[in-house]
Amino acid sequence: MWLQTSCELKFVTDFPTPFIFMLRPRSGAQQWIASEEYLLYPTVPAFEFTDEYGNLCQRLVAPPGDFSLSTSARIMTADSIDQEPGGYFVDIQNLPDNVLKYLLPSRYCESDRFGEMATEITANQQPGYDQVAEIERWLHTTIRYEPGSSFLPLSAIEVNLQQSGVCRDLAHLGVALCRSLSIPARIVVGYLYELEPMELHAWFEAYVADRWYTFDATQQFKRGGYVAIGYGRDAADVAVYNQFGPAVFPIKQEVTVELV
Amino acid sequence: MWLQTSCELKFVTDFPTPFIFMLRPRSGAQQWIASEEYLLYPTVPAFEFTDEYGNLCQRLVAPPGDFSLSTSARIMTADSIDQEPGGYFVDIQNLPDNVLKYLLPSRYCESDRFGEMATEITANQQPGYDQVAEIERWLHTTIRYEPGSSFLPLSAIEVNLQQSGVCRDLAHLGVALCRSLSIPARIVVGYLYELEPMELHAWFEAYVADRWYTFDATQQFKRGGYVAIGYGRDAADVAVYNQFGPAVFPIKQEVTVELV
Amino acid sequence: MWLQTSCELKFVTDFPTPFIFMLRPRSGAQQWIASEEYLLYPTVPAFEFTDEYGNLCQRLVAPPGDFSLSTSARIMTADSIDQEPGGYFVDIQNLPDNVLKYLLPSRYCESDRFGEMATEITANQQPGYDQVAEIERWLHTTIRYEPGSSFLPLSAIEVNLQQSGVCRDLAHLGVALCRSLSIPARIVVGYLYELEPMELHAWFEAYVADRWYTFDATQQFKRGGYVAIGYGRDAADVAVYNQFGPAVFPIKQEVTVELV
Amino acid sequence: MWLQTSCELKFVTDFPTPFIFMLRPRSGAQQWIASEEYLLYPTVPAFEFTDEYGNLCQRLVAPPGDFSLSTSARIMTADSIDQEPGGYFVDIQNLPDNVLKYLLPSRYCESDRFGEMATEITANQQPGYDQVAEIERWLHTTIRYEPGSSFLPLSAIEVNLQQSGVCRDLAHLGVALCRSLSIPARIVVGYLYELEPMELHAWFEAYVADRWYTFDATQQFKRGGYVAIGYGRDAADVAVYNQFGPAVFPIKQEVTVELV
Repeated sequence: MWLQTSCELKFVTDFPTPFIFMLRPRSGAQQWIASEEYLLYPTVPAFEFTDEYGNLCQRLVAPPGDFSLSTSARIMTADSIDQEPGGYFVDIQNLPDNVLKYLLPSRYCESDRFGEMATEITANQQPGYDQVAEIERWLHTTIRYEPGSSFLPLSAIEVNLQQSGVCRDLAHLGVALCRSLSIPARIVVGYLYELEPMELHAWFEAYVADRWYTFDATQQFKRGGYVAIGYGRDAADVAVYNQFGPAVFPIKQEVTVELV
Repeated sequence: MWLQTSCELKFVTDFPTPFIFMLRPRSGAQQWIASEEYLLYPTVPAFEFTDEYGNLCQRLVAPPGDFSLSTSARIMTADSIDQEPGGYFVDIQNLPDNVLKYLLPSRYCESDRFGEMATEITANQQPGYDQVAEIERWLHTTIRYEPGSSFLPLSAIEVNLQQSGVCRDLAHLGVALCRSLSIPARIVVGYLYELEPMELHAWFEAYVADRWYTFDATQQFKRGGYVAIGYGRDAADVAVYNQFGPAVFPIKQEVTVELV
Repeated sequence: MWLQTSCELKFVTDFPTPFIFMLRPRSGAQQWIASEEYLLYPTVPAFEFTDEYGNLCQRLVAPPGDFSLSTSARIMTADSIDQEPGGYFVDIQNLPDNVLKYLLPSRYCESDRFGEMATEITANQQPGYDQVAEIERWLHTTIRYEPGSSFLPLSAIEVNLQQSGVCRDLAHLGVALCRSLSIPARIVVGYLYELEPMELHAWFEAYVADRWYTFDATQQFKRGGYVAIGYGRDAADVAVYNQFGPAVFPIKQEVTVELV
Repeated sequence: MWLQTSCELKFVTDFPTPFIFMLRPRSGAQQWIASEEYLLYPTVPAFEFTDEYGNLCQRLVAPPGDFSLSTSARIMTADSIDQEPGGYFVDIQNLPDNVLKYLLPSRYCESDRFGEMATEITANQQPGYDQVAEIERWLHTTIRYEPGSSFLPLSAIEVNLQQSGVCRDLAHLGVALCRSLSIPARIVVGYLYELEPMELHAWFEAYVADRWYTFDATQQFKRGGYVAIGYGRDAADVAVYNQFGPAVFPIKQEVTVELV
């Protein structure tokens, strides 16, 4: 399906403020960016680099006063997402080198503390895809999904205590549970068509049967319409923006996703 | 200055034909891509990856029949290019690791065979920027520049024998001469505002005084308006397209660069 | 100074157990490996790869029963460590791209929660080196250093609550405090000559005045004799070994460092 | 089999001379380095980095006068090399991203000029492994192998004109022929047990049936005992040493390979 996505951010700052944005989706195996726009008001010098996960990041210093970004893109993405019930667990020794980092605990995914819980949840499942699908199901029925956004990400431990969270928080718990079973898992931030209410979204991927599969505990039914902006170990790696110096909050954050 | 660039390519193929394109300029230290479009007719699955030089490459298989690409971008680039007369030669032991590869001979830049010639040309110059500037001047006055495009790149040795060439060929000789003096050098392909006649362009960069500087032996005067699409050791790394299987040639290649 | 280092690990396993080891120091800017030995008993196929931080990692599956590794190396390292009182804070926009990741919170360094505390500790310091030196001093005088090793790393928050920890734990708190001031910081694991009692060691580095500087809150006096094995965001990245499947603990871990 | 390899190089220089050496084999999928020694006389600061092909490179400045390197290693390598008659050709669109660069022409492998010749040589072969095996056979029976070393590498075109060459030259022609058939190919330098006369060796690898396979046109029979030091597009990437400034030649180069 062809989607038109947009994200507009507006800040008011008192000081020159360094930002790192991650707002440019990349063409890749799963999506093709046919056209794209990335506007800054006022125009300031911006420098783009690729981070260690392959994400495009934009660095700039916002001048004091109003500062806004307006990004939009026309993107072809899959109508449905791939599923692979029964997909096998990949033995550690057969994982590609660059997937191994997704086995380790990270800031918001303390997988080193979830081994027992993950084993219980997936007790009756075959190792691999079915374990992850069961984790997704468990999250969907157990952890209350509270749509919308929150500024402070919760770690898997915190989400588990609180038994509720935004999309990003549920993804953190999903990732931590997978990793504690030695299944590589990562977070994805991006857009989802017909998300209610419309916002930036986050979900997770697990590496089974020799590739990454998409999981999203916030949705009742599997469907397509996902557009990835960034991949990482957890929210610390895929912040839509990182800002340095005295804290600045967006006074406007508007997201749209429309079928073309 | 703000430029609107476009490049359209059209092919007719008899067989499914794998292509790797390099037609997506990247935002970076020197230019900012404000908007961009990349259209395929017919639409086929395309996969993007980043090569070892940081260039964005698009992989696809063109179906038999007509196939065309249409890319365009709105880009902010510098009004003038930096110069640094007297800029110092960087000792090998002080070069960044990732610059070292630009010291080695490559397919079209046989720098291992140009030591004597480069030494003669730059006999009266201080090591560093001034040597490169002298090489650029020597190329401009000695090698006849034949604007337009050619399908088969010439190597530095061939250009030197023929005493003429297109932009890419002059760049090859410039790069080979620099490297033979232990100055890292690389080729750049991209757009140049007000190039006559308008076509894709190629020039070279040399690493002196701790950064890359732009050199272009095809132009009488230094000016801005450059938009880089790809960087590499020579034309083998930065082909706008690589095509595999029975040879296919573009039946149309149209380039425009306009001031916004 | 020339050091002879060794580390021997011995495990007993009931099942074939996948391991990833990080026990091979690399020659680099700070140390030169003149000779090295890495023996496995029994001999099993082992595969080496370089992780995203440049560390050499060895992957293998230990067979059931006794399994041991014996590594040793003869290494030249600096007699003293560089210091730079007054060294300037590097503005975010001037940091190299590959240093930016060391600004982000990570598994054991929840820098997003330490802004206020770091500001208080460094209240009277110039931004940059002096802030980090003050953090090191504060750690040394405030957090009780308990030499020896522990299996479960503590996060910065946990160390701060507990007010004590092993070398790795102190490093976590140091790193978190630096990052919360927008100073890139990373953990290092390795050897330290004359460490008492002798064990693998951990310390941290901060990026100020355009390079990495060494800090170690466990030692009273600055001195040389450091040998780095691995660099990372925190202990999750630089585990000397990661083991998958049912937990296995070393029945022997012996480290020696001698002056040659 | 377990091999003990050594390489000693000795130079006499009149000036401080920057060198980049590539003399440290890496543990990887095909070999395990159990012990290793790398000595410099006199001792000078040396800095190691990993190049874009994953090779370990050592940078140093040799002082005027005598300078020597002495490296040795104990290595486990395969007793025989894998073969895969009938192994399939991998379609361009299915090649891993990081293999694509081995399809392009390079300094000493002008694959863009060998299409017709390669097609003739492999006329009766199935695409894939069998084509490469036929190229290896053709090289072995057609191009006279002249054991020993030469300072100036020959390019594939030059080897083909001369109809003879050292191991490196035969590898260049093999690589060029493979690439002209859209089969990724690369050169390898290293050691070979029982090579006559004993010297550093070079051979090539081709990517078919989803992995790299070893080919060596200098040997009558397929056998094991290969130890790789470096991989690259051609000899320009894998020089055992690159030296900058006034030319310096080794006054001694001694290689040994013994069964342990």
